Amino acid sequence: MASLLLKRLSLHSLRSSLSGCRHVSKAAPQAQMEWDYDGPCMKTAVPGPRSMERLKQLGEIQNVDAINFFCNYEESRGNYLVDVDGNRMLDVYTQISSIPIGYNHPALHKLMADPNNLSTFVNRPALGILPPGNFADKLAESLLSVAPSGMTRVQTMACGSCSNENAYKAMFIAYRNRERGPGGPTQEDLRSCLINQVCRLSWCLATTHSKAIHKLDIPSLDWPIAPFPRLQYPLEEFTRDNAAEEARCLEEVEDLIMQWRQKGRPVAGIVVEPIQAEGGDNHASADFFKSLRNIARKHGCAFHVDEVQTGGGCTGKFWAHEHWGSDDPADIVSFSKKLLTGGYYHKTDLQADKGYRIFNTWMGDPSKNLFLVEVLNVIRRENLLEEVTRSGKALLQGLYALQEQYPGLLSRARGQGTFCAIDIRDDPTRSKILLKARDKGVLMGGCGERSIRFRPALIFKEYHVALFLNIFNDVLAEFK
Amino acid sequence: MASLLLKRLSLHSLRSSLSGCRHVSKAAPQAQMEWDYDGPCMKTAVPGPRSMERLKQLGEIQNVDAINFFCNYEESRGNYLVDVDGNRMLDVYTQISSIPIGYNHPALHKLMADPNNLSTFVNRPALGILPPGNFADKLAESLLSVAPSGMTRVQTMACGSCSNENAYKAMFIAYRNRERGPGGPTQEDLRSCLINQVCRLSWCLATTHSKAIHKLDIPSLDWPIAPFPRLQYPLEEFTRDNAAEEARCLEEVEDLIMQWRQKGRPVAGIVVEPIQAEGGDNHASADFFKSLRNIARKHGCAFHVDEVQTGGGCTGKFWAHEHWGSDDPADIVSFSKKLLTGGYYHKTDLQADKGYRIFNTWMGDPSKNLFLVEVLNVIRRENLLEEVTRSGKALLQGLYALQEQYPGLLSRARGQGTFCAIDIRDDPTRSKILLKARDKGVLMGGCGERSIRFRPALIFKEYHVALFLNIFNDVLAEFK
Repeated sequence: MASLLLKRLSLHSLRSSLSGCRHVSKAAPQAQMEWDYDGPCMKTAVPGPRSMERLKQLGEIQNVDAINFFCNYEESRGNYLVDVDGNRMLDVYTQISSIPIGYNHPALHKLMADPNNLSTFVNRPALGILPPGNFADKLAESLLSVAPSGMTRVQTMACGSCSNENAYKAMFIAYRNRERGPGGPTQEDLRSCLINQVCRLSWCLATTHSKAIHKLDIPSLDWPIAPFPRLQYPLEEFTRDNAAEEARCLEEVEDLIMQWRQKGRPVAGIVVEPIQAEGGDNHASADFFKSLRNIARKHGCAFHVDEVQTGGGCTGKFWAHEHWGSDDPADIVSFSKKLLTGGYYHKTDLQADKGYRIFNTWMGDPSKNLFLVEVLNVIRRENLLEEVTRSGKALLQGLYALQEQYPGLLSRARGQGTFCAIDIRDDPTRSKILLKARDKGVLMGGCGERSIRFRPALIFKEYHVALFLNIFNDVLAEFK
Repeated sequence: MASLLLKRLSLHSLRSSLSGCRHVSKAAPQAQMEWDYDGPCMKTAVPGPRSMERLKQLGEIQNVDAINFFCNYEESRGNYLVDVDGNRMLDVYTQISSIPIGYNHPALHKLMADPNNLSTFVNRPALGILPPGNFADKLAESLLSVAPSGMTRVQTMACGSCSNENAYKAMFIAYRNRERGPGGPTQEDLRSCLINQVCRLSWCLATTHSKAIHKLDIPSLDWPIAPFPRLQYPLEEFTRDNAAEEARCLEEVEDLIMQWRQKGRPVAGIVVEPIQAEGGDNHASADFFKSLRNIARKHGCAFHVDEVQTGGGCTGKFWAHEHWGSDDPADIVSFSKKLLTGGYYHKTDLQADKGYRIFNTWMGDPSKNLFLVEVLNVIRRENLLEEVTRSGKALLQGLYALQEQYPGLLSRARGQGTFCAIDIRDDPTRSKILLKARDKGVLMGGCGERSIRFRPALIFKEYHVALFLNIFNDVLAEFK
């Protein structure tokens, strides 16, 4: 019933998109996916009057400063997000990179139409104590079928921050257990942790950054933070300088590990993103990551690769760390977003030694695993990783060309797969460009101090790239 | 289609439950809910052979020490959880108190059968930037329709720990903003928080405890912790002693607030559960909570009531804090579990002043709000809060009677609504009782050092209480 309805809506919407709708740039090439729209279609400025009404309404309930506009998810399809004013935008941001195969993919609707699946949605279990009978099978079909090299174990969690937080916990537990040896925790250990007394703690070394406003006023643990390499792009043109910068950062990591050990606060783990995303899409070489991994091994630290944003295929490989070409890339890999469930993979020695050490009520959501099985089927069936590689090349080439065309405005085009970014002259110009592009039917996001990041779905094809570049070019021309 | 299937399954299962199945205790009175089963039905010891097989399989993927058994959620219904070996248990624990109206409630299946709802499941938005058009309406229909007194604002989150964590953040932000005045953060504030430097932090005073194993080895902030009153039960028989104990705890709270202010670490908020759950179901009087709330007001601390476990109707009121009879019970109320989504309500001055200060990718899940609307409809239509009050009285009376019957074995029966607990002689005996009861078809949970906690669904009727007490009595008789 659901899939029938979808087809009807699809025909209806395609028809309405062909008649009476203003195309904002060159006509797009013919759509190859019959269920996708064939181009943006703008009817009002964004946010339009209906979004503004709802913004006022929601403003009575929540802070709405970060809200872009309100969406009509029923009418959204494929690469196109439709808003409540009927504007249809090419979505190159996909809910902060969390929609893997586009909106309302028929495969996901088909899953919802199968009555055998319904009880999984209706009865959410406490997975840590009473999992469904098919839980291990579904993990095998979904998360374990794409497990990083050397990992056969996975723990699901409800969201990205819980995934990372519990991955840190796993590293602390493993580190202290190794340090303590087979005796186990003393009564004093147990007593003092209950009254929050800090006793011989170990620490994580983080290489991730975020917006200052995220952290302001929030008490946080005083963890060592090492700099992430600040490279010059295109990487292949600056190999020598970049290698020196990476060497500098690696040296600082080792210094920090030594300093903190001397302070009596040994570093239990190193956390790194394969592409530092919120911090401004900073890349580093495979050699950098392999060396960092070796430093972790040498000093007995766990190596945690945070693939919350990079995982799920957007770099052209399922995991960004696969680009390093290492058989033993990490001890822990955390994920969320495009995987639809949070969680982390880990090596066997990073598994908590007792029940309830890594624990909360839900520990994930099996209904998200069901969706993930289908998403992975679609990725395989439609060779989406190859598509991403192809589209990503076209996108990066296009960004290079635009950068050459607008040298004062654009710089540092960079990317892996469709996980691309480019820097804008300054932050105010970036804001203006994002708004102009949106009014012309392209939705993008920012990251770092003045970057625009591209985070399309895995079904973003070469003709979507062409469509995007045309509109982006139109926008940039106004800023020349 | 889904609801048709359910009906067929229901008839089939009822029939099979009437024939050939051993009833473990007295026959239960006739079921009033046609879709519920009419009693437990045990076929194997628990965990049975199929659960053991799956335990081995899942043990290759995760730590399985906390797993009870594997469930057949398709066949579970109402108050009865069915396992993969075909055992059907009266569930007095309901996935750590997170199943509000029983398994496979027809109202929730009906919701899934409506094609208009499907896109909410298929397209999970980034709620903080691109909410669906009906988001405010759905919040109004669901969470805001049961908002605590004095609160019109709510923030959803994906799980319980994120809910509390972000509620703490909101308190820190509000406290520091008030302290800073209208000037806003300085550049130095922004810079130093990015490099994790601790600058003039404020702190939360917590009155919640958990298992030592949850906290061991995990670095945590050195927050002040005040004792929760340790009262004698039944409360009404020990009013004088209990009042003295509560006065002692309140005094200590005020002392801690003064001490920490002198240390330069002012307390930004006080966090308390209306019934301290994981810590062993510790109760306190309405006067205690009202005094604590006054202390918070007097010292400029936000007052955060953590209703993650107590919220959603199980105490006989929708929120446990309603029992205090206060018009201004709290500044922040966090929830999760029975509300199906995490989040927190807050007063207007606890709202973050800028976008992205309280932020993550998903910020909740609108598909859970859909379910919550239906759950609240069922609670109202079926007067479930009255039912809970009635069942709760019967349950507590029954526990008092058993306690009298087994004085060396049981003590400290206590409860509000069906949110009841009783203490067992010692931890090993508790474990044995929980296992025996499970083998006889009743699933319960432990909390604290030697308590059993009861956390049935809101559809746990008086005849379920009678059924439960009979089986529990049979079990206890073996330990006399």
